[in-house]
Formats: sequence, C-alpha cells, structure tokens
Amino acid sequence: MSKSYTVKGMTCGGCARSVEQAIKAQKGDAVVTIDLSTARVTVENGPDDVAVAKAVDDAGFEYAGPA
Amino acid sequence: MSKSYTVKGMTCGGCARSVEQAIKAQKGDAVVTIDLSTARVTVENGPDDVAVAKAVDDAGFEYAGPA
Repeated sequence: MSKSYTVKGMTCGGCARSVEQAIKAQKGDAVVTIDLSTARVTVENGPDDVAVAKAVDDAGFEYAGPA
Repeated sequence: MSKSYTVKGMTCGGCARSVEQAIKAQKGDAVVTIDLSTARVTVENGPDDVAVAKAVDDAGFEYAGPA
C-alpha cells in the first residue's frame, strides 16, 4: 500500500535523500519516492502516519499531512 | 567545548538544517554551526563523535570524520 504526504522545506536532492533516510530509519523496507516540485512524498510499505510525521519533523522538515 | 567535523553531501540550507536537527535529536542543547562551502559542521556541547557520525549518516549525509 502506498500513501502520499506533503512535506515542506525540501529544496534539493540532499533534502530529499534526508527525508527518505529518515523514513527508512523507521521501517527499513519502505520505498520512498519524492517529487520536489510538488513537495509530495510517496511511501510504499511505510511506517504509520505518526511515525512518518515524527521522522520528517525530526529531520528538520515540515510534515504538512497526507497529500 | 566545540568540535568540528566534515560532512559531505550537504548542498543547501535544507540539508544543513537537517544535519543540525539530527545532531540536536541526540543532544538537545547542542549548538550546531554549518558552513556549506567547506562542508564543516561545528558542534558545541554536542554528543560524542560516534553519536554525531550515526546521526549524520542516518540523516542521509556522509560523516567524513573530524575536521
């Protein structure tokens, strides 16, 4: 199952990689796809929403809810 | 006491903020200063080197040792 979220504050590939790693640190087999232009993070087989939100916020970006 | 490290892969302010947050997540009262142009991260009152290395790597950047 895949879910999408809006994450604000990512401006380059390094930011995207950081968000990806933060989510994978919660659940190693998650598949994370990030579209910088729309601030959309799609997670397949990921942790629950609360864990995604915490991971994103702890990584220094802004979790803005499901997209 | 302040220590400096080289961290590779940061390319913008979002990356820098992410590294800063990752280190602060280990020790909340750490003071982190980042110079993107030299890839130098200076940490005052921070966690130990091993914790810094793990935080940086987990955040999707490359810890390259003390600077």
